Amino acid sequence: MSVGTHPTFENSPSETVLTSPPDGSAVDRATEAARRVVDALLRTDRGNANLDRVAEELHSIAGHLEEHAPAVAERLIDMWNGEGVTRHDPVTGPENALAPPVVLEGLSDGSVRGTVTLTIPYQGPPGHVHGGVSALLLDHVLGVANAWGGKAGMTAQLSTRYHRPTPLFEPLTLTGKLLSVDGRKITTVGDIRTADGQVCVSVEGLFVDKTVPRPR
Amino acid sequence: MSVGTHPTFENSPSETVLTSPPDGSAVDRATEAARRVVDALLRTDRGNANLDRVAEELHSIAGHLEEHAPAVAERLIDMWNGEGVTRHDPVTGPENALAPPVVLEGLSDGSVRGTVTLTIPYQGPPGHVHGGVSALLLDHVLGVANAWGGKAGMTAQLSTRYHRPTPLFEPLTLTGKLLSVDGRKITTVGDIRTADGQVCVSVEGLFVDKTVPRPR
Repeated sequence: MSVGTHPTFENSPSETVLTSPPDGSAVDRATEAARRVVDALLRTDRGNANLDRVAEELHSIAGHLEEHAPAVAERLIDMWNGEGVTRHDPVTGPENALAPPVVLEGLSDGSVRGTVTLTIPYQGPPGHVHGGVSALLLDHVLGVANAWGGKAGMTAQLSTRYHRPTPLFEPLTLTGKLLSVDGRKITTVGDIRTADGQVCVSVEGLFVDKTVPRPR
Repeated sequence: MSVGTHPTFENSPSETVLTSPPDGSAVDRATEAARRVVDALLRTDRGNANLDRVAEELHSIAGHLEEHAPAVAERLIDMWNGEGVTRHDPVTGPENALAPPVVLEGLSDGSVRGTVTLTIPYQGPPGHVHGGVSALLLDHVLGVANAWGGKAGMTAQLSTRYHRPTPLFEPLTLTGKLLSVDGRKITTVGDIRTADGQVCVSVEGLFVDKTVPRPR
């Protein structure tokens, strides 16, 4: 990420939105519909006699989209063109059906915050969020917190602690905040809480100040 | 998980498949097609004039699947009915379009192993796997390694170390192995390697011997 062009808590107002919320574009609306399909496939009756037909229709749609897709290398260049915020990552990306998607905003105290309600595709233990999904969300939140703190880096180490099972179907608050910088090492913390403030998962990340070059 | 009914390295042959690979059922085929849609939505030309139509068709499919879905509470009971291996988790589940899906097998030395090639939906840094996705995959691999080792537990702590960026579009080997048991504490390790054996991500997990009850 090109940090110079990012909003940070020192140059931007509180509650600045730091991710790319769905903007009503056709691709965002198609992705939202794909998310609904992913969820519904896990919920529909296993004896639904039309699943064969659904498979055919989905393959037909995928075939159409692929016919109109540039080569992957070319698409990657386009995907990473432009400044800072991505629209395609698996946590906040409105163009990625794997993403819930989470919307994060930066606060004046240097922290970032977002709310998300997760459903069956994100399930680990019965009725609860998969522990690995919590780690995925928090890793991303910490990366955004770094940018809001004026830094960018690659994850070097992520320590995730699970305090209690994280519920599905309830609003969860995600937070992250850059704690300290020591040379090239950045330490950032975050957590996932229920609406009544109980900490389900907390995380401490160590990041190093380097990035993977963008494709060109 | 009901460990008594699980295969373990002490009661089962080497290379026992420990996950539920796609079985050619209609729901698995529909889910495979949905995965293809998710990937293609990230790759198709952003100017594709038919994206509005795609959104409509996907909403129509989702609507049909939802019409034939039982109440969520009822579906959860059904989902968790039966023994051990799940078909719906976001890492190995053939019925979950979020899952690549990973297939894991147990080896006679007590370890579990699988191979996966990840594409654009799993991207973090340009051309590389999202660090949180690596944590998600490894958390799940460790859980399966615990079962293969004859134990079950909830993740208490997960320490993930990132050694080098993990490439997309290349086969990655995932491994996990239960290292030690101390009372109710289980320590399990794992890693992600490239085809030539370079460790990209390693993980150590601490699990506690308890589970969330199944819905009934």
